[in-house]
Amino acid sequence: MTGFKRPNVKHLMLFSGRAYPELADEVSRILDVDIVPTRAISYANSEIYVRFEESVRGSDAFVLQSHAAPVNEWLMEQLIMVDALKRASAKRITVVAPFYPYARQDKKHRGREPISARLIADMFKTAGANRLMSVDLHAAQIQGFFDGPVDHLWSLPVLADYVESKYDKSEMTVVSPDAGRVRLADMWSDRLNVPLAIIHKRRDPDVANTVAVHEVVGEVEGRVCLLVDDMIDTAGTICQAAEALVSRGAKKVIAAATHPVLSGPAPERLTASAFEEVIVTNTLPIPEERRLDKLTVLSIAPLIARAIREVFEDGSVTSLFDGQS
Amino acid sequence: MTGFKRPNVKHLMLFSGRAYPELADEVSRILDVDIVPTRAISYANSEIYVRFEESVRGSDAFVLQSHAAPVNEWLMEQLIMVDALKRASAKRITVVAPFYPYARQDKKHRGREPISARLIADMFKTAGANRLMSVDLHAAQIQGFFDGPVDHLWSLPVLADYVESKYDKSEMTVVSPDAGRVRLADMWSDRLNVPLAIIHKRRDPDVANTVAVHEVVGEVEGRVCLLVDDMIDTAGTICQAAEALVSRGAKKVIAAATHPVLSGPAPERLTASAFEEVIVTNTLPIPEERRLDKLTVLSIAPLIARAIREVFEDGSVTSLFDGQS
Amino acid sequence: MTGFKRPNVKHLMLFSGRAYPELADEVSRILDVDIVPTRAISYANSEIYVRFEESVRGSDAFVLQSHAAPVNEWLMEQLIMVDALKRASAKRITVVAPFYPYARQDKKHRGREPISARLIADMFKTAGANRLMSVDLHAAQIQGFFDGPVDHLWSLPVLADYVESKYDKSEMTVVSPDAGRVRLADMWSDRLNVPLAIIHKRRDPDVANTVAVHEVVGEVEGRVCLLVDDMIDTAGTICQAAEALVSRGAKKVIAAATHPVLSGPAPERLTASAFEEVIVTNTLPIPEERRLDKLTVLSIAPLIARAIREVFEDGSVTSLFDGQS
Amino acid sequence: MTGFKRPNVKHLMLFSGRAYPELADEVSRILDVDIVPTRAISYANSEIYVRFEESVRGSDAFVLQSHAAPVNEWLMEQLIMVDALKRASAKRITVVAPFYPYARQDKKHRGREPISARLIADMFKTAGANRLMSVDLHAAQIQGFFDGPVDHLWSLPVLADYVESKYDKSEMTVVSPDAGRVRLADMWSDRLNVPLAIIHKRRDPDVANTVAVHEVVGEVEGRVCLLVDDMIDTAGTICQAAEALVSRGAKKVIAAATHPVLSGPAPERLTASAFEEVIVTNTLPIPEERRLDKLTVLSIAPLIARAIREVFEDGSVTSLFDGQS
Amino acid sequence: MTGFKRPNVKHLMLFSGRAYPELADEVSRILDVDIVPTRAISYANSEIYVRFEESVRGSDAFVLQSHAAPVNEWLMEQLIMVDALKRASAKRITVVAPFYPYARQDKKHRGREPISARLIADMFKTAGANRLMSVDLHAAQIQGFFDGPVDHLWSLPVLADYVESKYDKSEMTVVSPDAGRVRLADMWSDRLNVPLAIIHKRRDPDVANTVAVHEVVGEVEGRVCLLVDDMIDTAGTICQAAEALVSRGAKKVIAAATHPVLSGPAPERLTASAFEEVIVTNTLPIPEERRLDKLTVLSIAPLIARAIREVFEDGSVTSLFDGQS
Amino acid sequence: MTGFKRPNVKHLMLFSGRAYPELADEVSRILDVDIVPTRAISYANSEIYVRFEESVRGSDAFVLQSHAAPVNEWLMEQLIMVDALKRASAKRITVVAPFYPYARQDKKHRGREPISARLIADMFKTAGANRLMSVDLHAAQIQGFFDGPVDHLWSLPVLADYVESKYDKSEMTVVSPDAGRVRLADMWSDRLNVPLAIIHKRRDPDVANTVAVHEVVGEVEGRVCLLVDDMIDTAGTICQAAEALVSRGAKKVIAAATHPVLSGPAPERLTASAFEEVIVTNTLPIPEERRLDKLTVLSIAPLIARAIREVFEDGSVTSLFDGQS
Repeated sequence: MTGFKRPNVKHLMLFSGRAYPELADEVSRILDVDIVPTRAISYANSEIYVRFEESVRGSDAFVLQSHAAPVNEWLMEQLIMVDALKRASAKRITVVAPFYPYARQDKKHRGREPISARLIADMFKTAGANRLMSVDLHAAQIQGFFDGPVDHLWSLPVLADYVESKYDKSEMTVVSPDAGRVRLADMWSDRLNVPLAIIHKRRDPDVANTVAVHEVVGEVEGRVCLLVDDMIDTAGTICQAAEALVSRGAKKVIAAATHPVLSGPAPERLTASAFEEVIVTNTLPIPEERRLDKLTVLSIAPLIARAIREVFEDGSVTSLFDGQS
Repeated sequence: MTGFKRPNVKHLMLFSGRAYPELADEVSRILDVDIVPTRAISYANSEIYVRFEESVRGSDAFVLQSHAAPVNEWLMEQLIMVDALKRASAKRITVVAPFYPYARQDKKHRGREPISARLIADMFKTAGANRLMSVDLHAAQIQGFFDGPVDHLWSLPVLADYVESKYDKSEMTVVSPDAGRVRLADMWSDRLNVPLAIIHKRRDPDVANTVAVHEVVGEVEGRVCLLVDDMIDTAGTICQAAEALVSRGAKKVIAAATHPVLSGPAPERLTASAFEEVIVTNTLPIPEERRLDKLTVLSIAPLIARAIREVFEDGSVTSLFDGQS
Repeated sequence: MTGFKRPNVKHLMLFSGRAYPELADEVSRILDVDIVPTRAISYANSEIYVRFEESVRGSDAFVLQSHAAPVNEWLMEQLIMVDALKRASAKRITVVAPFYPYARQDKKHRGREPISARLIADMFKTAGANRLMSVDLHAAQIQGFFDGPVDHLWSLPVLADYVESKYDKSEMTVVSPDAGRVRLADMWSDRLNVPLAIIHKRRDPDVANTVAVHEVVGEVEGRVCLLVDDMIDTAGTICQAAEALVSRGAKKVIAAATHPVLSGPAPERLTASAFEEVIVTNTLPIPEERRLDKLTVLSIAPLIARAIREVFEDGSVTSLFDGQS
Repeated sequence: MTGFKRPNVKHLMLFSGRAYPELADEVSRILDVDIVPTRAISYANSEIYVRFEESVRGSDAFVLQSHAAPVNEWLMEQLIMVDALKRASAKRITVVAPFYPYARQDKKHRGREPISARLIADMFKTAGANRLMSVDLHAAQIQGFFDGPVDHLWSLPVLADYVESKYDKSEMTVVSPDAGRVRLADMWSDRLNVPLAIIHKRRDPDVANTVAVHEVVGEVEGRVCLLVDDMIDTAGTICQAAEALVSRGAKKVIAAATHPVLSGPAPERLTASAFEEVIVTNTLPIPEERRLDKLTVLSIAPLIARAIREVFEDGSVTSLFDGQS
Repeated sequence: MTGFKRPNVKHLMLFSGRAYPELADEVSRILDVDIVPTRAISYANSEIYVRFEESVRGSDAFVLQSHAAPVNEWLMEQLIMVDALKRASAKRITVVAPFYPYARQDKKHRGREPISARLIADMFKTAGANRLMSVDLHAAQIQGFFDGPVDHLWSLPVLADYVESKYDKSEMTVVSPDAGRVRLADMWSDRLNVPLAIIHKRRDPDVANTVAVHEVVGEVEGRVCLLVDDMIDTAGTICQAAEALVSRGAKKVIAAATHPVLSGPAPERLTASAFEEVIVTNTLPIPEERRLDKLTVLSIAPLIARAIREVFEDGSVTSLFDGQS
Repeated sequence: MTGFKRPNVKHLMLFSGRAYPELADEVSRILDVDIVPTRAISYANSEIYVRFEESVRGSDAFVLQSHAAPVNEWLMEQLIMVDALKRASAKRITVVAPFYPYARQDKKHRGREPISARLIADMFKTAGANRLMSVDLHAAQIQGFFDGPVDHLWSLPVLADYVESKYDKSEMTVVSPDAGRVRLADMWSDRLNVPLAIIHKRRDPDVANTVAVHEVVGEVEGRVCLLVDDMIDTAGTICQAAEALVSRGAKKVIAAATHPVLSGPAPERLTASAFEEVIVTNTLPIPEERRLDKLTVLSIAPLIARAIREVFEDGSVTSLFDGQS
């Protein structure tokens, strides 16, 4: 036979954007693999430049970026990294985006809006990504926005283990802060085997129509209320929900959410709120000045590291979650 | 200047698959436009053949199909129609699918599942569709599965007008049959300005774990309960919900849903159920033997016809729904 | 160098749709590999659901489906399987379709028709198929409909070996049942080294123009006539051909065809026909009630199994057919 | 409403490559439209340069090229013209290729061959063509190679009208020169209502296996034999066929074919042959030195001009052929 | 004929991002068309939201954004606007980017770099842009990065008219500040008909290799030197060039450049420099604090407005530049 | 686990078109690998046919073609080879085009021109190429025309080593023959550490405007002038440049260029010119009759062979050029 042959090897390489290097470092330590040395600069005119300092040819590349603010910067940096990997002959490129950017713009709420979450998926594909990995997508349907495999990781086991170890479930009720998160609250209720309640915003028919009352649907009096959400952004909704619960006789309110966006007035609101504890993961960096005492941060790095290893080894990511995904 | 010029005209043409010709006829009467004569056959070996009996060159084609069972047949017929239109030089092709097929497989519930709703969107695109029109998508995110414009119509105004004209809202409560439909119930609650309750399936911790109890979260005693859903398929969930409401003291239970799938045991279940009235639209045909006395069917044809006209005339579909979409 | 390396392995996995599990079983036994356990359901509303019960990550997947009636069901099932494999990170996906669906709609016979065979190829691609394997395509040009490799297998050696072992070639004439199959008849004539005749349908100029006479072009008197075709569907053409041959003095008529579609009136027609033996393969299942005494079924499974092995091992499929393909 | 509006016009523009300007001129005269002035050069190093000398913005562009030898030159020129039109904002681009290049490589005859006819279709698409128009494709399946509308014109009416006007059909037999053209011969037989015969090449079993005999299947003695084909290239097959017919007692042999490729030894062979007349169209230019006395050339320009006009006016091309295409 | 017809109109709509509304306003005044009212917000977490406040269905949309710092923000905003237009059924979408973002990363200068300028073109396409319009691309080859029409506008006539009206050409020399801009300087030299010189950076062989000397190639003593470039970013190169010219006896130095990036130390450097006047256009906004006395800003709005009108009216953009593009 | 596993091997296979087999032979000897036996024919009608004579399944295929005149022939041959490889299941296909065809049409110089260099890149992609390798692209931006990895090799080290070994650098000046090549001249100047000059074509203001004078910018009197370019085509520009240098007192003129196109009058012009030596590589074949005495041809084969090996072995091509690319 003409030509010559070589054994084929696969080569895991881990890359990190500049948004949250500490998370990448933690993943790299767990995987026991160094992050590929990368030169990344923001020029004076704000354009980003990236170059890898060693050959990436033939690699199975995992590109981790945390989409904190300024999200468009970090998104663009990751896209540029993917483009550079594609052009440098990486064999397979997996975008790791623990907090999927623009996830809330996953549909047209009104006419003439974008569906930015789909646009993001298409841009990753266009740049050269073969696969995506993310944690707790705002809507699971976002998996379907990407034309290729998506490894969808769940932080619920991490968060729930912590809650169970610290609180007495017998007096606990899981509460959804609005109609859109009831399915998540339902999964928590199922996992902890505790009752469910929901907060329901409704216009008061007797007064002007911009005024909303926060009705509590379900029993919360004397209960330890666990408010659950996929993210805490400005913390407005969840703090109003906590207040409504307290005014309805809740014994205590705590919160659990995957993504600590914590933007704008979030720290002030949480500090002023009735919450005794707010539990999040580190899919996003939390600047020093926003690290409240009542905030508990659990690391997502072990989960990401295990998922990367399963993907690289052709194992099973599904098995990490008992068949769910 | 070289060449010659002609005024450009646009030419609306309406096509119908064989799944539910009565709906297409109704749309065609409202639009005051005939359906394009089409030869469609299922051969003895079950392959489908389609041919249009007049020129469709340059047309703005709207291809209406109702995705009733056998859904794969009608889906394939519509795809073949689109392919034929593309190859016959139609200028623009809009797939009108009042009930989007495979909408419930809109995400991976567990590992190694398909996302069939995305696959459907891609197949329409591949066949040649430029645009989609659908009614009450199971998840609004499905809009983002299609790479192009989607006109998403809402039947809520049609259904709610009927409910308001017939029932006394002062004693009504809107009920979500499970955690996944609370957002829909919330919109109904907002529209009718009545309270909300939800049914919550939970494993009873004291008995074997496959047994679920249907908890009612919220007040329903003495209320007229309106269960809302996007579709009624085998009617299992909604009939169990009705039973739970009655056992919790509901005065009366009625249901409103867009899509009357009504498959398998649905007629028996609905007949045996506590429902006084079940209100649906005709996005899907209802065979004679499944037309129960307690079933009220409102026509979706006026809405589809108006939307087609707006699309053709470059008007606004959004305006039909006060800016929402 | 940063990162770590592993030897790369390839992993053959065989999947089967529900249309004809016996064929997949036979292929699996020859390959000595189990079929991947798969959960496949048709819901009450006729939508199909599929899930693989073990990890398929990194696999070289072969997805076998037999496109018998109801062909749209089995086609859709296979597309959904491919989508699920793509999203579950299979490395390479080969669709094995022994009988290519919609192969006869391979061109526009008249204006405003679809080219469904191209649409099928595009849908396989869209769902995620990298490669196709099929047996005796109705037109070899269908290979060109798919944007990727197509392994085109020929059953002629299997069928011809049987014919040669059972009949005396010295008194045999190969007959094409119409103008469209002469090239196939020519290959048979070449392989068996016997004369050729064709049946030619022609309107009789002296009578009304819908009446056609079946002219026999070539010598058939006293001959054992072997009618050849790629498929027997409703058996109308081939049975009329047999009758024409007998009325022209043929000593005996037999038939050989790859695909036993056998739809509608085929069993009655074949039973009533002059055929002494009808030889087919099992690219399609033949229900018990259609298994006529005069029908001889040769297995295609050994050929498919060998081709899959060659594809997996980077061998040569062409070599199975002496360089032809 | 914001913005301003203008009536939309469509603007037919006709472009011609350099392969056969006389055909384009004839089409342009019939359409009564000038060919767009175009600068086209082959540089010293054989690269081609093209520029249009007036604005083509918004035009409905028809790009006519005749794919005579050197076919790769003329193909590349047409692709470059299409690219320039796309980049200059033409609105719609139709490639007019009366003789589709590489049409005979429409399938893999043996393993490891290209399917060049599909490649050509994809290259037209890649360059920017929205539509194709061609005459008598070698295989009608080539329509399915292009992902978009194909206007497939037939020269049979043009050729048959001429044959009928000149020859007595009562003594005529249509003959296919080999197994691959029987379907075409069948259409001629149907149109002229005359009998059919075919030439069948077969290895003589008694002598060495590279020797083939040309068997005539059907009655030809004393008949005027009309050999039909889609093209005459080196004229080897058709001249051998003519010889076989004469040796079997044919009274006269004539030929009709759409595409006069006439390459290599064709003129010598045709001159030396038994043909009394060879009828072709001018889909390809025939150099002066190859214009034999026995060659009759019918113009295809009226058909192309009518088809262009129908396409531009959103009329029906199918209607030019009584519904066939 | 089935269906009904309407005259087709085209509808120009002008959209503006938030980067530089004054430029869009100026274009809109010249075109005499209002900018479409648009709601655009940057949320607290830095994600951008956009919605158009009137129907854009069927429009010929021109989306103007100026890619000033923070460029990734404004780029993302424009992409989101394009996505929203696509999903809202705009008929044609033209991205107007007077200063093409990431234009300098138009090739790999070293291994493992991205080609971000191509990535940008692909992202515009992915979002839904059909066409691009830009001014003075850093490399004209960037036109080829986009798969569709690019209207490439030149500011040279605008800048040169001003220079000619103010300075005496008889004592002028055009100077390229480095090897990469000589082609541009050449065009200026051709337009003004004055001599050319270039600055050539060269490592001094006698000292450490990071030290570069700025050699002046050509005669500059006693001349009015016009340094030309496509952009002035940090102004480092051009100010060093000015210094070198002065030290070589230049009588006066002025500069002309299209894009006033003016980032980082640019204002200080220009103020301290030998330049008497620096002439730019307003393709980018210049914040108040960076508006130096010696800076002359010519408006690019008339050129953009004329080009938009030509594109909309199917006129000729090329004609604005005497056939060049 | 279901299925079976095999170690994965990679298999380098080298293919050659017919344009310049000697170069492929040289590469194959250095790589120590035979060229895959290939049947390639140009038929009488000028269509090309290609078939590989052994299995290429799973191969890492490198397809070398030299794009000499007739360039469209050799381009088409290479595209057909790539199509055949794709359809024969090659795993990865790298087009090796030492002289990129149509590289000079890399932008629209005027309106309504093609960008043929982009078209070429797209055609390679369409045919099935995964990667490109080329030497000294006319513009480095062409890398960005291809949607995938491009290995861009530089001949400067090869050419410069020769120049340095033969000429005294102390009296040398590098000269750019026009404004478009100054960047290249700059790199030479940097590498050799010698001064730079440029030839500047300018219309003489005192005479009719089609007359151009060749101004020399920079010092050349008494210098050994090395004119550098990426290619020598008709040699007009470079010979006029040589003349201008001599008339300005140059002591000696030599030239170095990568690609010896040498078309049309090039041999006569070079012979008649003042050049003492013209140094090129063999990226293109030089026919015997064009091999001038003053022409020195250095082989590019070692560079190509090393690059292919690095690509196959997942090494680093960048490392061959000290990090540049």
